[in-house]
Amino acid sequence: MSEFRRDPVIGRWVIIDAARTFEKINPSSSYPKDASNCPFCPGNERLTRPAILSYYGSGANSKDWTLRVIPNNKPVLQVEGSLKRRADGMYDKMDGVGAHEIIIETPRHFVKPTAMDANYHEQVFKASIERIKDLRNDARIEYILTFKNYGIAANAVFEHPYSQLIAMPIIPKRVREEIDGGKKYFAYKERCVYCDIVENEIAREERLVCENEMFVALCPYASRYPFETWILPKNHSSDFDGISQKELSYCSQITSLVYSKINKVLDDSAFSVLTHTAPLKEKNLTYYHWHIEVIPKLTSASGFEWGTGLYVNPVLPEDAAKYLRECE
Amino acid sequence: MSEFRRDPVIGRWVIIDAARTFEKINPSSSYPKDASNCPFCPGNERLTRPAILSYYGSGANSKDWTLRVIPNNKPVLQVEGSLKRRADGMYDKMDGVGAHEIIIETPRHFVKPTAMDANYHEQVFKASIERIKDLRNDARIEYILTFKNYGIAANAVFEHPYSQLIAMPIIPKRVREEIDGGKKYFAYKERCVYCDIVENEIAREERLVCENEMFVALCPYASRYPFETWILPKNHSSDFDGISQKELSYCSQITSLVYSKINKVLDDSAFSVLTHTAPLKEKNLTYYHWHIEVIPKLTSASGFEWGTGLYVNPVLPEDAAKYLRECE
Repeated sequence: MSEFRRDPVIGRWVIIDAARTFEKINPSSSYPKDASNCPFCPGNERLTRPAILSYYGSGANSKDWTLRVIPNNKPVLQVEGSLKRRADGMYDKMDGVGAHEIIIETPRHFVKPTAMDANYHEQVFKASIERIKDLRNDARIEYILTFKNYGIAANAVFEHPYSQLIAMPIIPKRVREEIDGGKKYFAYKERCVYCDIVENEIAREERLVCENEMFVALCPYASRYPFETWILPKNHSSDFDGISQKELSYCSQITSLVYSKINKVLDDSAFSVLTHTAPLKEKNLTYYHWHIEVIPKLTSASGFEWGTGLYVNPVLPEDAAKYLRECE
Repeated sequence: MSEFRRDPVIGRWVIIDAARTFEKINPSSSYPKDASNCPFCPGNERLTRPAILSYYGSGANSKDWTLRVIPNNKPVLQVEGSLKRRADGMYDKMDGVGAHEIIIETPRHFVKPTAMDANYHEQVFKASIERIKDLRNDARIEYILTFKNYGIAANAVFEHPYSQLIAMPIIPKRVREEIDGGKKYFAYKERCVYCDIVENEIAREERLVCENEMFVALCPYASRYPFETWILPKNHSSDFDGISQKELSYCSQITSLVYSKINKVLDDSAFSVLTHTAPLKEKNLTYYHWHIEVIPKLTSASGFEWGTGLYVNPVLPEDAAKYLRECE
């Protein structure tokens, strides 16, 4: 079983998961050409643990699933274990309690998520939300992160399109920083900082990628990475799983468009996508705003970034936005 | 000129350096076999800006330098510019003022720093300290980071052994977090947290890599990366450039040993090394302890790490320390 260990200086929790051994350390440099052993393909369901959730096409039989959610065979966190923090000499640790699930986005092995339409993404979002709502019943879970790595350079182990969900007993450091920052801004301005960003970027246009009735995509002012892109709902909401059906439809549309633009401008580059939402037990926050962060994997962080938490971005966000905006 | 931009939510400063264009984005996958055009080799001094500092062998003429410090040809920060923070709509920015220098560690192109003895490292440390002491005279500089990337996977652009120094007008986020964490610990325990770590790890041995009279090398309890190794002085001190000659000699010895162990255990893996020291204007802190962090580049951070600030480390620090400790 993995464990959480707390850095005694800065308080950051790290997951030490020795069960992963060196698999993650030496990723392969290409995917197998032959997909017949893919555990995510129809017919190979026996290679995974039983599905937690399956969606089916209309009128289809039980073999014709369109999406499956399965427990990760090698989870970084698992359901069993105690949440008790324990001393370990001068340090603190905790069992690696939580959940780690895989969302198999489609039965089709060789499709590219960047080429898929809004319906495709809507189904994935729906499955994420259904799982989050279910996991809310486990009182030990404080936070649920849904994310997707696309391409080998972004550590996507499988070629078959998939997303991941990790439910954890702590609030991740960066989300906590966003919430604390949002709270400070609200205390001074009595407005949500993300709502201000949305309004400001729509008005200034220079960092705008695209927008629709309910969502906006933009390259943030202090982008850490080249072509970093955020997707935010125009209406204030802190909780991703509180999204309405109408919003979901617009969110899926803009996601499909942003993926397609990034794919074209960056020539099928690897990327990661993360949903940032409020901690499960802090609902309906006035000072936090859920959003999606798309981070193309063009640079790799070096010692400078690691050692400072200070990022050097070689591309002006205004230039990145212009490329993405003008790409059809 | 580059600029600092402040993230309006979490307050992180990012350097936007559009002058770097895509060079950093598409690093080459191997170094040129032919070193004749290397700007760091003797005879090619005309390819760089004039040296800020040069060391010479005893009795040698001016061509026989043993180390040179030069301004980076493509600095992420530069000396000219105003320090004034300016509003940019709802955002904040500042000129990219600072210094970015290269320490050419040796005239020899093809030597490996991991194979070098203590004298080699002592000369590099001396040059860093001399430059830090000089840059302290510029009142605009708040922090100086010295670091080294070794190997292409760690973003070392040149094969010729070199280190870097970046002087900046802000305190990097991670150093600020360490100082704030150290302050909290001191407020409660009236002891330096790093001094406690040093004492604890020497006593427990399980995460100890090696030690000498004045320094210790260990794999930290909550290591973020496999084989992450810290080198700390046993005597409390917050300022790297306050090191005594005797300490410098022991520090160089342990650095040589740690590099050699990492090289052997990890088969010439790429790595980054960073010196964490107190901000220039906060000298002699009781609650901060300068140290060196060695981070082998075995894994690449994925969306999960980016999105959460939560790291998954697949190697137990106790196992990593054991491998390193037992390697001759």
